[in-house]
Amino acid sequence: MQNISIFFIIEMIGTVAFASSGAMVAIKKELDLLGVVVLGVTTAVGGGMLRDIILGNVPPALFMNPVYVIAGFLTVLVLFTVVRLNQMILESRSIEMYERVMNIFDAVGLGAFTVTGINTAVMAGYGDYRFLAVFLGVLTGVGGGVLRDIMAGQTPYILRKHFYACASIIGAIVYTYLLEFAGGDFAVVVSACLVVVIRLLATRYCWNLPKATKKKKEVV
Amino acid sequence: MQNISIFFIIEMIGTVAFASSGAMVAIKKELDLLGVVVLGVTTAVGGGMLRDIILGNVPPALFMNPVYVIAGFLTVLVLFTVVRLNQMILESRSIEMYERVMNIFDAVGLGAFTVTGINTAVMAGYGDYRFLAVFLGVLTGVGGGVLRDIMAGQTPYILRKHFYACASIIGAIVYTYLLEFAGGDFAVVVSACLVVVIRLLATRYCWNLPKATKKKKEVV
Amino acid sequence: MQNISIFFIIEMIGTVAFASSGAMVAIKKELDLLGVVVLGVTTAVGGGMLRDIILGNVPPALFMNPVYVIAGFLTVLVLFTVVRLNQMILESRSIEMYERVMNIFDAVGLGAFTVTGINTAVMAGYGDYRFLAVFLGVLTGVGGGVLRDIMAGQTPYILRKHFYACASIIGAIVYTYLLEFAGGDFAVVVSACLVVVIRLLATRYCWNLPKATKKKKEVV
Repeated sequence: MQNISIFFIIEMIGTVAFASSGAMVAIKKELDLLGVVVLGVTTAVGGGMLRDIILGNVPPALFMNPVYVIAGFLTVLVLFTVVRLNQMILESRSIEMYERVMNIFDAVGLGAFTVTGINTAVMAGYGDYRFLAVFLGVLTGVGGGVLRDIMAGQTPYILRKHFYACASIIGAIVYTYLLEFAGGDFAVVVSACLVVVIRLLATRYCWNLPKATKKKKEVV
Repeated sequence: MQNISIFFIIEMIGTVAFASSGAMVAIKKELDLLGVVVLGVTTAVGGGMLRDIILGNVPPALFMNPVYVIAGFLTVLVLFTVVRLNQMILESRSIEMYERVMNIFDAVGLGAFTVTGINTAVMAGYGDYRFLAVFLGVLTGVGGGVLRDIMAGQTPYILRKHFYACASIIGAIVYTYLLEFAGGDFAVVVSACLVVVIRLLATRYCWNLPKATKKKKEVV
Repeated sequence: MQNISIFFIIEMIGTVAFASSGAMVAIKKELDLLGVVVLGVTTAVGGGMLRDIILGNVPPALFMNPVYVIAGFLTVLVLFTVVRLNQMILESRSIEMYERVMNIFDAVGLGAFTVTGINTAVMAGYGDYRFLAVFLGVLTGVGGGVLRDIMAGQTPYILRKHFYACASIIGAIVYTYLLEFAGGDFAVVVSACLVVVIRLLATRYCWNLPKATKKKKEVV
């Protein structure tokens, strides 16, 4: 019970971070209130929706118990109102501080959602299908962001740069192995923390994956 | 029986309007015949397909009884042929008249599809899950247009402007309440008409939702 | 058994060709390694995934037996490594030869996947729903490419030009009729070959579908 409560809290932190990332993309694209709400909420719960559809877990959990939808919705409303009341905030110093906090929240969300996705697969009886379990973990973590980017008309962030999705992939693989050899709680904590740490290190030190073609060097 | 016939007719009106909106987007993007057919038919039946997938109602109804697919297909063929035979029509006066009629048809379709979506959720036994029911109503109404816009590579219309999706949302919420307190037929008529009226008023008076950032004023 | 082996080989040829087409799009868009892997593998197995979701065949087959995922993944890795080690290859003569071979492989894949899609529908008991069966055949053939293009932010190739999807549509319709009147093996061979031949003839002679509006002639 205690565990569930703590896990619920970190999932909520992730929901707030994901919703706000979707809302900021929509605000920068000058979408209207509905656009901001749809993009924010989709980023927050879209990954879980795709996971449930692929698992045949329909209607997806988010519809049966819309607590995460409501949390995402409220986050978006607050953000929209703050920006609306104070346009300058988008170019102020506080936005930097805000983005730094949200970056940490987002990392926490990525860790929590990755673990949740795999747990959903295991509970549905697919624990032995490691590829499926890892895929669903990563999809739960990054799927909302992919839907956000497709709807916003930009190439999905995870395909373009940073180590973002890799943090989720590594955590997911580690989690499926830990589940076999260690207790559930231990596996959850280690794997989720691993995702958070890799994700934050990747942002801090600008880790990037290689590209096939090198940029031409600037002419001196 | 009489009710079903009338409802079938207004759904057909919606199918024609939705298919023609998809076909016009494809024609303006200079897609070829297949592109025009795919975008037209997807706009007409895509919302219902997404609804059925989320409900676990598979294969989606449109595949088991493709009467709406055929209606959408024929609409697209007629439109394609007319434009092909008379290129000037796209810049003529008649296109204005055509767009005015299609705007009304589209409003009728939005009302009918919103109600249909909720009815599908209720019949599948999810009448008590209000959020799910409302979501599926709106998805049935606007989902085809969202798929159209994603495939055409433009930010979905409903996220950008006008009160379009809000008409469907308001009608859907009203319908779920009316279903509890009033008879089915009464609820259908009132809710669908509400969607149509809001949708037409919104177009007529250019209702828009607020944006977070105001456009900079033009320099005088 | 013998049949299955041969069919498995031509499906593998298709998987390699589809994965490499996705990887090339990603490389040209300068996506990073993860982007190249995701786009390559999605192109290879995305059509079958969409087919299984629409059929209610969940989790989709690709997750339960990821042999095609692995084949696509290895293809992408090889391609990425070759381009990375030799940047000039993208502008060399060998790329022309490579594209010619891949074009043939791609045609073989389109034929094989179209037939596979219909077989899946028939085995799920929907053989009598011809529209569904044909749709699922074509979706298996072209769906991966559509997902690739949506994720890469470009209007799906099949909507823009060439006769690409039509080869699959014609083969799918012929196959559903042959299944009724002829033996399974005969139907498979004739239909798949028909797709390959139409697809190659279409590329060779630049067959295009008509568009609604003609391009304005260049001013002389």
